[in-house]
Amino acid sequence: MQGLMMQMPLMISALLTHAEKNHADTEIVSRTVEGDIHRYTYRDMGRRSRQLANALKHLKVKPGDRVATIAWNGYRHMELYYAVSGSGAIIHTINPRLFPEQLLYIINHAEDGIIFFDLTFTPLIEKIAAQCPKVRAWVAMTDHSHLPPARIENLLCYEDLLDAEKDDYVWPEFDENTAACLCYTSGTTGNPKGVLYSHRSTALHAMAVCMPDVFNMSARSVVLPVVPMFHVNAWGIPYAAPLIGAKLVFPGPALDGASIYQLMEQEKVNYSAGVPTVWLGLLNHLKQHNLKFSTLQYTVIGGSAAPPAMIQSFQEDYGVRVLHAWGMTEMSPLGTLNTPKEKHLSMSKEELFKLSLNQGRTFFGLDLKIVDDDGKSLPRDGQSAGHLLVRGQWVIHDYYKSDGGSPLKDGWFPTGDMATIDPDGYLQITDRSKDVIKSGGEWISSIDLENVAMAHPAVAEAGVIGVHHPKWEERPLLVVVKRAGQDVTREELLKFYEGRIAKWQIPDDVAFVNELPHTATGKISKLQLRQQFKDYQLPG
Amino acid sequence: MQGLMMQMPLMISALLTHAEKNHADTEIVSRTVEGDIHRYTYRDMGRRSRQLANALKHLKVKPGDRVATIAWNGYRHMELYYAVSGSGAIIHTINPRLFPEQLLYIINHAEDGIIFFDLTFTPLIEKIAAQCPKVRAWVAMTDHSHLPPARIENLLCYEDLLDAEKDDYVWPEFDENTAACLCYTSGTTGNPKGVLYSHRSTALHAMAVCMPDVFNMSARSVVLPVVPMFHVNAWGIPYAAPLIGAKLVFPGPALDGASIYQLMEQEKVNYSAGVPTVWLGLLNHLKQHNLKFSTLQYTVIGGSAAPPAMIQSFQEDYGVRVLHAWGMTEMSPLGTLNTPKEKHLSMSKEELFKLSLNQGRTFFGLDLKIVDDDGKSLPRDGQSAGHLLVRGQWVIHDYYKSDGGSPLKDGWFPTGDMATIDPDGYLQITDRSKDVIKSGGEWISSIDLENVAMAHPAVAEAGVIGVHHPKWEERPLLVVVKRAGQDVTREELLKFYEGRIAKWQIPDDVAFVNELPHTATGKISKLQLRQQFKDYQLPG
Repeated sequence: MQGLMMQMPLMISALLTHAEKNHADTEIVSRTVEGDIHRYTYRDMGRRSRQLANALKHLKVKPGDRVATIAWNGYRHMELYYAVSGSGAIIHTINPRLFPEQLLYIINHAEDGIIFFDLTFTPLIEKIAAQCPKVRAWVAMTDHSHLPPARIENLLCYEDLLDAEKDDYVWPEFDENTAACLCYTSGTTGNPKGVLYSHRSTALHAMAVCMPDVFNMSARSVVLPVVPMFHVNAWGIPYAAPLIGAKLVFPGPALDGASIYQLMEQEKVNYSAGVPTVWLGLLNHLKQHNLKFSTLQYTVIGGSAAPPAMIQSFQEDYGVRVLHAWGMTEMSPLGTLNTPKEKHLSMSKEELFKLSLNQGRTFFGLDLKIVDDDGKSLPRDGQSAGHLLVRGQWVIHDYYKSDGGSPLKDGWFPTGDMATIDPDGYLQITDRSKDVIKSGGEWISSIDLENVAMAHPAVAEAGVIGVHHPKWEERPLLVVVKRAGQDVTREELLKFYEGRIAKWQIPDDVAFVNELPHTATGKISKLQLRQQFKDYQLPG
Repeated sequence: MQGLMMQMPLMISALLTHAEKNHADTEIVSRTVEGDIHRYTYRDMGRRSRQLANALKHLKVKPGDRVATIAWNGYRHMELYYAVSGSGAIIHTINPRLFPEQLLYIINHAEDGIIFFDLTFTPLIEKIAAQCPKVRAWVAMTDHSHLPPARIENLLCYEDLLDAEKDDYVWPEFDENTAACLCYTSGTTGNPKGVLYSHRSTALHAMAVCMPDVFNMSARSVVLPVVPMFHVNAWGIPYAAPLIGAKLVFPGPALDGASIYQLMEQEKVNYSAGVPTVWLGLLNHLKQHNLKFSTLQYTVIGGSAAPPAMIQSFQEDYGVRVLHAWGMTEMSPLGTLNTPKEKHLSMSKEELFKLSLNQGRTFFGLDLKIVDDDGKSLPRDGQSAGHLLVRGQWVIHDYYKSDGGSPLKDGWFPTGDMATIDPDGYLQITDRSKDVIKSGGEWISSIDLENVAMAHPAVAEAGVIGVHHPKWEERPLLVVVKRAGQDVTREELLKFYEGRIAKWQIPDDVAFVNELPHTATGKISKLQLRQQFKDYQLPG
């Protein structure tokens, strides 16, 4: 027997319609590429998104067509999120930090028909446009007066497109499993692969992340997403914010510590989200100039594990609550987030801090398990480390165009992470499966060793890799970037490990470098680091 | 083009599975009908619910069959919620406060095959059992030693059923639009009508109500739902609590102020939910015994409008934050809840209090509109009062067995309430359409007049109805129950209205009574009150 409730598909356009009706006057503030601060409301955004949807119709964008963006976090990007998906097409958000050959691969693989870009990327587009045969229009996300004298064929102007349209567009309703957004994984090995989210998966993910034990976002939040809208949809914040009526503050291209800090203070931001590298820059800026946050209350840290020293500094030096999160492009991306349970509230400050260091608990809609090399489930005892598998409402079923065949194992998606889960459901990522250091049949977590090094005051950034060892197969090598104006020796750093980690896990050597290689999403590239040190001779 | 995310139906059983995995040790505490306090965890509840699902299978309960409960809030009722719906059958929660003829009508209309009941209701069952030809088994929700010597044919014992079963049941997956739960509206006029919720509508409602701007429930919540599980599924709390891993505290049959207070203190309850009548009892108990709450932080008040004096007393006398809510059986039931927006946080205490008195904002998944008598949309200006219509993910499409024909108007459900909506989306219910007093072509809200009376220290309860007036068509009559040991005159009460409400709206007269008539759900029965005073002669 069927229930007798209304049948309404979960539509991305409904998120915007909700905000327009119930949070019409709530602001969306953007630092623009052109240089000024742009300020409008959900009411304005709704109207302009409908104009844009009319423009897409006149550009002959059909349901299922891919429309790409190469753009910073800003209001026009937000309008594209809603106009493209809302009209039944697919928004493909491209990471501009990829190498040009990867960009070209992605654009041609996705078969993008129209590409919208911020002015920053005009030189890039000039370089690649001729090699994108399927792209029939390039739209500069600016007004007529800022349109660049670019040598790009079929160049259009965003504001000209909107000026030509009325706001009478009516968002269509269709199957909620229709594709809505396309993101490519950064692809440390092989070609990038596309993850194709649906309206349903996006809406359910947005509902889930707003919860008190996840992002805890409400109509009292003023949210500055530093995490880019080209990076797994800024972790879903562009969907979550209209859902609950949060004020949005977009940083545009200015992601340095000084600019972020200035914008946070000016707009009374109380909520932010980003990867550790960005926070490193912000915290350094605060330290150097002896500054404090006036309004910031929460910051989500994800993308890679937050170093304990960073969590401690946010919480103790600046009174900002860190929400430590874990996710993947293939998971929309949220998987877990660290908040305490009621039973933890009577813990000492030290115990609570220790609890806050792991990746946290999962939430309804997602399921986790850890298995051994043979796929056998391991217990949730907080000790047994195994391969982490996930399944759920916002987890990939297959890559776009089935690249590489089905990624699933018995219906579960293998994350490539190693992890433990404790009896309360708290996840601890111990390492990437391929980064773990295999020393004499035992596993050493490269992340654990990096966290110790990061706690040393003279260390700005640290990466640990396994290098070949004649007896133990692999032994850990610590690669360090020193903090500006600080000094530390190999011996001091190795001594720093004593008492902080089992003796046999202490790195065999330290290499000092001026900078570490990073992936397009800001993580340390272990692949490049291993390449760089592949012939390294350990002492003794 | 379809998205490439996993396709998993939203199943009620998944809520329990989630809690079992991630909140295994979190407690569910129940005051039982037998008299003791029962205490177990989500792990235990999962195991016993699977045993119960096996028992239902052996009782030949098929998908779509109706299995009813006549029971208080407690752990066995919770197990039934999950075992019945989880196995594909429909749980029909019956309000035992209905008149026996209504009970019989509902049981036979729903065609309940098995009825589970708490021992409190043994005499009731003995009275009606013979008149329920479709019921093939009556299950007393107790253990063998407490089984009553009842004269009921086909009487079974709950714990005996479970003892005979293993916990190896595997929750099936099926279409998420399958019917899961059946609730009948209290039906002030005509026969009660059934509302048939689906797995999808129930799961989406549960996700929505957990949000920070709605119930704001988390794994740090210790929730005592006073609102009964036979009253619109206790507002969804039995689904929301496992979803986020809240500790549950069930009051059983002891709903008097003293018992509720004792249980709250003993179990460190920080969250509760119930109708105004119950809170009246609790607040009176606290006042009489000069008590305070040690742990209570939030209480949801809904079912009928919370009198301002009650909101004020909770917040100022006891430091408990009131979450004023509005909903209906036909809406699963949550429609709106009152929390401030960021822009309100700089308001004065008085302004914030005034804001907290309306029914609040709606949330993603639900849509509201107000229309005039001709169905034309009225503006959201906070002034224009109109008929309130709703639609959304958890709103009725049709009544069970299409009783009375489709209730919808152009795809919207007419609530029967009159309301205003302000530009920020805040809803103010001004009256029930049929309770509004029509005086000389103008409308007077009976609720507004009741709220003023309730603010008088000598008034325990107040109801206002329109009575016939030769000149004005109708004029308001205030009917009052005095607080024990307090006195007040007609003249004093009428004088109390001066300056608090427009002069022409002040009631024409006051009638003092020993008690007011109530509906089965604890609201004042305006229908009975109008009946009682139908020949009332107003003075002058």
